[in-house]
Amino acid sequence: MKTSIVIKKGLSSDMRFDLKDGAGSDAVHTSPVYAYAVCRLVTDSNLEGVGLAFTLGSGNKIVCQAIEYLVRHVEGKEIYELMSDFGTIYKKMADDPNFRWLGPHKGVVQLALAAVVNACYDLWAKAEGVPLWKLLTSLTPEQLVNTLDFSYYEDILPKYEALDLIKKQQAGISSRESIIETGYPGYDTSIGWFNYSDEKIITNVKMAMDRGFTAMKLKVGSKNAAHDIRRAELVRRIAGDQATIMFDANQQWNLPQAIDICTKLKDLNPYWIEEPTHPDDVYAHIALAKAVDVPLALGEHVPNKVIFKNFIQSGCMTFNQVDAVRVGGVSEFILISLLSRKFNIPVVPHVGDMGQIHQHLVLFNHITLGHPALLLEYIPHLREHFKSPAIVKDGKYLTPMEPGMSADLLKHEYSL
Amino acid sequence: MKTSIVIKKGLSSDMRFDLKDGAGSDAVHTSPVYAYAVCRLVTDSNLEGVGLAFTLGSGNKIVCQAIEYLVRHVEGKEIYELMSDFGTIYKKMADDPNFRWLGPHKGVVQLALAAVVNACYDLWAKAEGVPLWKLLTSLTPEQLVNTLDFSYYEDILPKYEALDLIKKQQAGISSRESIIETGYPGYDTSIGWFNYSDEKIITNVKMAMDRGFTAMKLKVGSKNAAHDIRRAELVRRIAGDQATIMFDANQQWNLPQAIDICTKLKDLNPYWIEEPTHPDDVYAHIALAKAVDVPLALGEHVPNKVIFKNFIQSGCMTFNQVDAVRVGGVSEFILISLLSRKFNIPVVPHVGDMGQIHQHLVLFNHITLGHPALLLEYIPHLREHFKSPAIVKDGKYLTPMEPGMSADLLKHEYSL
Repeated sequence: MKTSIVIKKGLSSDMRFDLKDGAGSDAVHTSPVYAYAVCRLVTDSNLEGVGLAFTLGSGNKIVCQAIEYLVRHVEGKEIYELMSDFGTIYKKMADDPNFRWLGPHKGVVQLALAAVVNACYDLWAKAEGVPLWKLLTSLTPEQLVNTLDFSYYEDILPKYEALDLIKKQQAGISSRESIIETGYPGYDTSIGWFNYSDEKIITNVKMAMDRGFTAMKLKVGSKNAAHDIRRAELVRRIAGDQATIMFDANQQWNLPQAIDICTKLKDLNPYWIEEPTHPDDVYAHIALAKAVDVPLALGEHVPNKVIFKNFIQSGCMTFNQVDAVRVGGVSEFILISLLSRKFNIPVVPHVGDMGQIHQHLVLFNHITLGHPALLLEYIPHLREHFKSPAIVKDGKYLTPMEPGMSADLLKHEYSL
Repeated sequence: MKTSIVIKKGLSSDMRFDLKDGAGSDAVHTSPVYAYAVCRLVTDSNLEGVGLAFTLGSGNKIVCQAIEYLVRHVEGKEIYELMSDFGTIYKKMADDPNFRWLGPHKGVVQLALAAVVNACYDLWAKAEGVPLWKLLTSLTPEQLVNTLDFSYYEDILPKYEALDLIKKQQAGISSRESIIETGYPGYDTSIGWFNYSDEKIITNVKMAMDRGFTAMKLKVGSKNAAHDIRRAELVRRIAGDQATIMFDANQQWNLPQAIDICTKLKDLNPYWIEEPTHPDDVYAHIALAKAVDVPLALGEHVPNKVIFKNFIQSGCMTFNQVDAVRVGGVSEFILISLLSRKFNIPVVPHVGDMGQIHQHLVLFNHITLGHPALLLEYIPHLREHFKSPAIVKDGKYLTPMEPGMSADLLKHEYSL
């Protein structure tokens, strides 16, 4: 018999972190401030659920206010009871009549939803005394689908089909569990931020390889194609032909520009090109995929399961970069991962959480859903702020063992 | 020489209005509170620019906070100078690095953008001492396109093509201007809110016809198809075969349900079926349009020009319901209307502003862009709160003559 744990109160914290020396700079943000809108669930026990949504800059405050409203849906609830039918409460929060017009299912209210949902999963895992990956991989298929909201997936992945898909993967679980011992491969996302000099990029590429990374990502997205291509060639030259290299344009090209530059970048044999154009533009990505035969990685800024459904149906998404601190938390992340599995599109998450939560989720995706264990983004810029920072050795994430989803921060208050 | 008018300060007001007796109820909102997030631009003259974004419920407060941040982009600016190259400042606001992660271009930050942008257009028209429709129809094609941001439209409607499209419409302007005298046809959106009894619907249909409306809309979107169909048959029976009748499902059906119910509603010869399923789901609307030959009206909850572009390209949008208090204000409304014109899709706006602003915009769309003068939604529930409420006689909007965009409210503070 499990001890009842009741959520007494939901709080929010607006946490912002300055990055140093151009780290985090991309084609949109020259001097980024990373920010977490944090939901904290205080309980009648000594456990606290902590959920993150990631943003950039002072708008983070607004997400915190939305959290403070939304969290009333889970206040007063017992955690095991809540999670036994979480899909229902998820839908209620996502469709709250006071917030629905502000979305639906996108922008500030969706980010707030992510923080609240993630705090519930964190509390659940802490209540069980296990890391999130362990909790999720231990659920029965029925328990798992009951945490999901299948609304608007009836035409493509109804609940019974999801259940079937999960059950079919059970045969391979024991062999896939070896990943817990070997660790999950990471890639270095910090070799070439947008503002970095050539010298710094060269140093970083060498350092990444010394640390055991065989995959790394460069920020592109300049309006000047020659500038992007020169830097990309530099990385390929230093890293060598065998290295796995990705280019990230952060949505900065329009379609004609994207076709032009991707055609040129293709010659450098990228593993993917990321966010080439506006993240809402399904048709532009289809046109790009037809025009240039290069793998596209998409999803960092896709806000919800419905737009993911469209991208997945469109056939232009080679890699799915769904982020559990951008869509409606772990619940929606799992649903999108399920659909992606059905269409055989690998999930390679964007990590607004700096990989803290996603190190759990990719283990679950691999072990339970049968996704290939490809790569998880590694971005260490906030590691000193986490209680249990992710550990990467020889280019691999070591399996986290602390209870919860590794999202606890050292302070409740932090501002610039 | 025009007198300089400088924006000194931008303020926000959180205005909420209770509706009575089930008015405004739809398949999502049983007891709606209509709300305006208002941007007020105080100037160094006696003029004040007033811009609205429409929402429902207490989330409105969050939009107001976003307005207070965003408005700094126009503070200190001279209005004529600002509007001479408004496309540039529009893009700067839409891509503000502190807000971009909260969208981009959707949700709370996009609604706040709408309020700020609309306040600029209102001030501009007041400065000229003319109603907004008069200002917009008097601009040269070059002045007009300079108020627009063509980012991500390079592949489908680059600036030079928009200019060309506007110029080609100039020949017919003088004949289309007769609409100013005759008035713009309205339709009654309030005959059958979701909670209304059959008796009330019968009374309302008769009253609408007595008032000269030949077009009217019923709320559907029940999970019970028989309930929707019974009410729809009732309206058709009372209104007669000649009446123009629309059905509005407020996104409540999933795709299989939508196909089922639309197949049945089709027999009642609707002018359109509105928002049958999730507003982000382009592929579901394509599938529905293929399965059932019935006109679809979409766009009330489409947040920006990029998703509109996708819906327009998809071929499933029969009527475009873009709303200038939902997308990024008048500027983005005009850009979307231009693209819609290119694809010969009529614009029949959703009116979160209760038609106050859109009565200007449909005149502009007809006179300058050559859109057909079809119908404008009429929804009188907030008319006592406006300084110059729209006047509808014999089923037609009389042309507004007061300077500005008719968005001034009687009070600056109003709460429940």
